[in-house]
Amino acid sequence: MNVEIISIGTELLLGDVVDTNSTYIARNLTALGYDIHHISTVGDNKKRLCTTLNTAKERSDIIITTGGLGPTEDDITREAVAEVSGCPLYQDQKLKKNIERYFHEKNYNLTENNYRQANLPETATPLGNDWGTAPGILLELKNITFISLPGVPREMKNMFKNDVITYLQQQNDKVILSRELNFFGIGESTLETKITDILHSQSNPTLALLAGSGEVKIRITAKADSEGKAEKLIAGSQKNIENRVGGYIYGIDSEGLAAEAGKLLKNKNMKLSVAESCTGGLVGDRLTDIPGSSNFFIGGIVAYSNQIKEQILQVKKETLKIRGAVSGETAAEMAAGIKKLYNTDIGLALTGIAGPGGGTREKPVGLVYIGIAAPDGIQVHQLNLKGDRRRNKWMSSQYALFYLIQKIKENNYENN
Amino acid sequence: MNVEIISIGTELLLGDVVDTNSTYIARNLTALGYDIHHISTVGDNKKRLCTTLNTAKERSDIIITTGGLGPTEDDITREAVAEVSGCPLYQDQKLKKNIERYFHEKNYNLTENNYRQANLPETATPLGNDWGTAPGILLELKNITFISLPGVPREMKNMFKNDVITYLQQQNDKVILSRELNFFGIGESTLETKITDILHSQSNPTLALLAGSGEVKIRITAKADSEGKAEKLIAGSQKNIENRVGGYIYGIDSEGLAAEAGKLLKNKNMKLSVAESCTGGLVGDRLTDIPGSSNFFIGGIVAYSNQIKEQILQVKKETLKIRGAVSGETAAEMAAGIKKLYNTDIGLALTGIAGPGGGTREKPVGLVYIGIAAPDGIQVHQLNLKGDRRRNKWMSSQYALFYLIQKIKENNYENN
Repeated sequence: MNVEIISIGTELLLGDVVDTNSTYIARNLTALGYDIHHISTVGDNKKRLCTTLNTAKERSDIIITTGGLGPTEDDITREAVAEVSGCPLYQDQKLKKNIERYFHEKNYNLTENNYRQANLPETATPLGNDWGTAPGILLELKNITFISLPGVPREMKNMFKNDVITYLQQQNDKVILSRELNFFGIGESTLETKITDILHSQSNPTLALLAGSGEVKIRITAKADSEGKAEKLIAGSQKNIENRVGGYIYGIDSEGLAAEAGKLLKNKNMKLSVAESCTGGLVGDRLTDIPGSSNFFIGGIVAYSNQIKEQILQVKKETLKIRGAVSGETAAEMAAGIKKLYNTDIGLALTGIAGPGGGTREKPVGLVYIGIAAPDGIQVHQLNLKGDRRRNKWMSSQYALFYLIQKIKENNYENN
Repeated sequence: MNVEIISIGTELLLGDVVDTNSTYIARNLTALGYDIHHISTVGDNKKRLCTTLNTAKERSDIIITTGGLGPTEDDITREAVAEVSGCPLYQDQKLKKNIERYFHEKNYNLTENNYRQANLPETATPLGNDWGTAPGILLELKNITFISLPGVPREMKNMFKNDVITYLQQQNDKVILSRELNFFGIGESTLETKITDILHSQSNPTLALLAGSGEVKIRITAKADSEGKAEKLIAGSQKNIENRVGGYIYGIDSEGLAAEAGKLLKNKNMKLSVAESCTGGLVGDRLTDIPGSSNFFIGGIVAYSNQIKEQILQVKKETLKIRGAVSGETAAEMAAGIKKLYNTDIGLALTGIAGPGGGTREKPVGLVYIGIAAPDGIQVHQLNLKGDRRRNKWMSSQYALFYLIQKIKENNYENN
């Protein structure tokens, strides 16, 4: 079945807002086994939206729109869907009451405009919206289904998860399951080359290679008559891939390297501290994005100047003088210093040249050292990155977390 | 003149990649005074791309495409533009030589496929591409102009800046200038209410209110016969806005609060250190995203646990016990502690409850204290944020940087 996505909002045409809604919906539709051939963006203009909806109606089975469901005159999705579907709008009494209750509870001022959100095309089902007042629309006709969702990403996602996914699954007679394998330390094209035969030899499960933020994922999607059969298909594919490139897999359906490191530390009941130079606090920021990070993360030192490396982290004056602030020796001493100062099981340290300035022939921009001081000794890794300042900072944090994960896994530390 | 944007690539329809190209182009077109009514996304499918191009040809004056200019069979933009425009492809000998030279210099393996990138529709002008081998296409016909750019954002932006902007400016007989005023500490709707008459009373300059990342911008765009006249129009509008809400403006065409704070510190030759609890390193990360930040940022302490607040930052045991880690007193002592420990002019401190856990009736999630220890004393600010964990961290860093900027501006510290 063909699904088509239409994003509505003049702010998108002005380039003021990036259309992440379409991407979110497209990714989920793909995972559900649907084909998408068209995504369109139109402004808050009823005539142009009707033209776009009419074109979409001719070529697709389901049309999903986002945006234009607000209370103002600019919000024209309800009117356009009514016109194109031939199902005129009526005021739904239950929705009207919901709106009145919501405004009453929040102590907001209810104006005549707000009642527009109680309007629905005839025979349509309203989709619940826990986060605001704009209900979505599900309108099933003989040859076409219209699904209209709000434009605010949080509201849209909530409605998509709660109401739309179930509906779309019901339209499929098969069960579709997917799983993501998370890779680090291997580039997209190298990974593709290593498993090209596996990637291209099968149609169920399908395999998709996804790259972004310095990581690669493989998404395995299986279609079957039952969940058990789909699960089995996925497991088979996963095993094939693991046999070939399992060493680069750091997680399954993971939320990223920081979350993975946090999970391992928590399981082992180990405490971590971080000494950051070139990353300036990024590793700490990423670790503390995880709810409950205080269970494993004690804190850190941002040692941007040499003086702090020496006075606070106890890096030796001679090390800084002879080897320099960006050296394996300094990284090792920073890691040992923070581990001791913060009295943690592991001390992680990063020092490098993020750029654009500060590079020399011997120590170019992108040279980064990562030190890990663990119960069984100190390890140092060297990176030679090739990005801009932000990219070098980001990749430094990625590698630091990856090496940390490896270290914990390899040593199989006993639970404290 | 109407411009239409078409993004080409199956990865966009699968939801694997967010289409930031369209947003970038739309924003630039708006600033150049063009109207955009449609943005479309199609996959690597020649038939569907031709249909989309034909529709666009009927309703727009200029069509800008991104993607599909690579060397593989999947890259179908050249063929589709040739078909829809009626200008058949030929192999451009100069482009062919460029490709051969590029592959030779890089020592890459040149395959037959790569020569496809030397193909151009008849009468088209190739657009230079400094970053890869795919040249863009500029094809001017009587009623329609096709501009085809690569899909890799870096290559696309480079070509847009170097070649397309000049072309588009030439099509306009007016000079168009724009300027952004950066606001913090005032919400979008409050700002709109305060200057609604100014916002809606004029058509040149136009004013656009842009919100995002907890900040608001007003973009003033003026169209005139000369740069001087456009400049004067902008200055007039700016003054009207400043008279009304100038207190909330923290920068002009600014790259954000961190960049603004860095500029001020550097100008005053002042050094900063940061003590972070709830933000976990985010403020340091943001400050060190600025090239040359070592000129004003010495480093910080991420004091996630109470033990670190006490032992390293010298927050008093009694303060932590009686007032708690999340209190104005602790924020003040953290700021004083980091200022002293790192021997800086200013010490900035943040402590709070980012959530989702950790809140109580007295100290709910979102309660954050910011301390600023400056040469003339210590100041504390309290925030009551209402976001999720990441949002609360982000807004804490925003407010901390904003109060820092205010502090430096108000006190007019003498140059050290």
